[in-house]
Amino acid sequence: MTDLQPVLDHIDARSDEYVRRVMDYVSHPSISAQNIGIRDVCNLLLDMLGKLGMQPEAIETPGHPFVLARYDVSPDKPTILLYGHYDVQPPEPLELWTSDPFTPEIRDGRIWARGIGDNKGQHFAQILALEAHLAVHGTLPCNVIFLLEGEEEIGSPQIADFIRAHKDRLACDLVVTADGPLHSSGAPVLTYGVRGVVAFELHARTAGRDAHSGNYGGVMPNAIWTLVHLLSTMKTPEGEITIDGLHDPIIPPTNAEIAAMADLPLDVEDLMQDMGMHRLDAPADRPFWERLMFRPTLTINGLHGGYGGAGGKTVLPAEAIAKCDIRLVEAMTPDQVIACVRDHVARHAPEGDVEVVASEGMLPSKTPFDAKWGPVIQASIQAARGQKPLVYPCVGGSLPDYVFTKILGVPAYVTPYANADEANHAPNENMEVALFLQGIRSGAALLDHIGRA
Amino acid sequence: MTDLQPVLDHIDARSDEYVRRVMDYVSHPSISAQNIGIRDVCNLLLDMLGKLGMQPEAIETPGHPFVLARYDVSPDKPTILLYGHYDVQPPEPLELWTSDPFTPEIRDGRIWARGIGDNKGQHFAQILALEAHLAVHGTLPCNVIFLLEGEEEIGSPQIADFIRAHKDRLACDLVVTADGPLHSSGAPVLTYGVRGVVAFELHARTAGRDAHSGNYGGVMPNAIWTLVHLLSTMKTPEGEITIDGLHDPIIPPTNAEIAAMADLPLDVEDLMQDMGMHRLDAPADRPFWERLMFRPTLTINGLHGGYGGAGGKTVLPAEAIAKCDIRLVEAMTPDQVIACVRDHVARHAPEGDVEVVASEGMLPSKTPFDAKWGPVIQASIQAARGQKPLVYPCVGGSLPDYVFTKILGVPAYVTPYANADEANHAPNENMEVALFLQGIRSGAALLDHIGRA
Repeated sequence: MTDLQPVLDHIDARSDEYVRRVMDYVSHPSISAQNIGIRDVCNLLLDMLGKLGMQPEAIETPGHPFVLARYDVSPDKPTILLYGHYDVQPPEPLELWTSDPFTPEIRDGRIWARGIGDNKGQHFAQILALEAHLAVHGTLPCNVIFLLEGEEEIGSPQIADFIRAHKDRLACDLVVTADGPLHSSGAPVLTYGVRGVVAFELHARTAGRDAHSGNYGGVMPNAIWTLVHLLSTMKTPEGEITIDGLHDPIIPPTNAEIAAMADLPLDVEDLMQDMGMHRLDAPADRPFWERLMFRPTLTINGLHGGYGGAGGKTVLPAEAIAKCDIRLVEAMTPDQVIACVRDHVARHAPEGDVEVVASEGMLPSKTPFDAKWGPVIQASIQAARGQKPLVYPCVGGSLPDYVFTKILGVPAYVTPYANADEANHAPNENMEVALFLQGIRSGAALLDHIGRA
Repeated sequence: MTDLQPVLDHIDARSDEYVRRVMDYVSHPSISAQNIGIRDVCNLLLDMLGKLGMQPEAIETPGHPFVLARYDVSPDKPTILLYGHYDVQPPEPLELWTSDPFTPEIRDGRIWARGIGDNKGQHFAQILALEAHLAVHGTLPCNVIFLLEGEEEIGSPQIADFIRAHKDRLACDLVVTADGPLHSSGAPVLTYGVRGVVAFELHARTAGRDAHSGNYGGVMPNAIWTLVHLLSTMKTPEGEITIDGLHDPIIPPTNAEIAAMADLPLDVEDLMQDMGMHRLDAPADRPFWERLMFRPTLTINGLHGGYGGAGGKTVLPAEAIAKCDIRLVEAMTPDQVIACVRDHVARHAPEGDVEVVASEGMLPSKTPFDAKWGPVIQASIQAARGQKPLVYPCVGGSLPDYVFTKILGVPAYVTPYANADEANHAPNENMEVALFLQGIRSGAALLDHIGRA
């Protein structure tokens, strides 16, 4: 018998109350992109966390404030930082919602409301887990820092500066984020990393104006041909990126990570059917999960030049633009990658044809398997849900988790509480009531296991 | 002393009358694209050619009618077919015209009106040349067929069928077209050929829908990459088209054609400055005129796929389209070229990714230097203008001249009468009065020289 069971019992006995309270919480809009309700929800959180004795603060930034709160039990205990975000996506298009996005309803065992999955329902579950521990034991199993952001849905423009500026106050042993969905099978998930990303544009200009393809064809260079030939030097048809130096920093998967990838469920036929794909991307022989977790990509997000209307137009285009992104794996960096791209373009494009315009980018994040906390969190998930999580060494997308692993310098994990069909960023966002309650239990078990580790 | 001088004198004595008459002719709109005034101008021509004793006919087609007229002097004399078109471009945007497009004015020694250069002023000059011969000599130096089209400005969709259907009535020894501008120096021009053209689209689809570049990057194929890699196999950065079989039928320039190209005026620096080009298209060592006259092109007219708006979007596009045209030189054909393209795509694109959608295309046209009539026409130009013409073995653009060289099977020449800044297809179309009158003289000299050849 551990200290956890009475906390779980406390949670299970209060499910109706918790559901009512989360429905109240998500009834308050907090739309960062439209600057609607941010201060209201910020104040709600200050009130809520204050009642738990956490002395919360709203810390101003050039954008929306961060909510920071802490509960210290002992310097001998580990400190966990729980990250979440209290802003939500805009609800539009409103006409596609079955019920009002900010008038939460329960139907078919789900709560329907903007932000219930992404991310208010998930961090509210963490807050309730903390409340339950305090109610049962009068204290927490470990030191806890809450960090709740108000700009995640607009790309977290302040988070890196914020973490750098408040590094001392944020000192901790690990960061855990409850965000995103469980596996579509319903299995819980624990994620150790994300790919980084950097975007750039290739602006090609080969003449002052478009020309007639007959009168100038063979004489005037074509900006689209410039991009086609340049891009074709950057990646082979066999799927290998051929930009010198780009791969140099890459850390290949460890044996443990290779084993974890092999354990993940995979139905490629099903995925291909779902996406309408008749083949996988090249190279054909690269293991599926390695493509998404341990390899960079060079994606052309868009290429536009010349005539695109109905029928034909015998024009010779003087201008074309390619928009690209590169997903980065450990230990690539946006600066390193863009330097390689610039160097490549300088060596391969006709002189004067192409300008490279780069964005700032985001570092990848990777928590090693041998960090102490991974097995602890896995055990806590097993304790709360009776099921081992699927372990993802990395996911293909990009989140600013590097601010924890690279700026704070601690292990960072993501373990989601929402259903796979939560419809975040879409109309009819929802969260299964049972999964919301499981989230509270998971949060309680997490604190308990960290405290005993 | 020849029979020509009194005809030229007759023309020179009637310049005011001729200018008045051409201004009346172009005051009647005949806009094929908008179906405005076509029948009126057709009837004007029937009346005009009838008065010359030519028994003209308007021959119906599924589109606008052709006007066909003939004057036979003797089966022992050569027969020249004079081609022109009585339709004009739409005048819009009207607000950019200094004077009304269909209320001709004379300013600065030019007649300003839609169609004065392209092509009503030029074929009207031919008609007046004929009238002058008849007035002076009561007959013509040779047999003459007039063929005036009403759909040139919408791409001559009926002309090939028309020529095939009326081949016997159109039997002749040569075709001469007065259309287009003189050289910018004012020098007269004689052209022996045009490039053909065929357009095709490459439709790439690699999945049923676009996807997130992080979640699917490395797994889902990218339709733009498919096109980039496919296109890069079709032409090298060094400017060589690498589609098997495409070049097989090409007839290289003769020594006489090479000599003619070397005689043409050329200021590459000036052209580059005018077009805002910092380099010529590859390959750098290919002679300038050969690029336009004796080499095919593969032009990407447009390539569009994925995101093209402001900022970035981390999308992995499932669909992209490239629109291309290939300019053909003698003796390439659209069918041969498209067969090569289809074969190339089948061998180089990932299976199932790309569909080729081809248009019908237009054959090239080439009249050999050793055909009898070239020197005769050159001498007639010298006689009318006191200046030898610049001789172009070919021009880069495409016109359906093949209907004369390949369907009728006779030499075909183009010799323009308008000024280089005629602004055809643009607001403020104009023709220098002096050049209009030179055109009548040139037309008269042409008939005279053909008759004596």
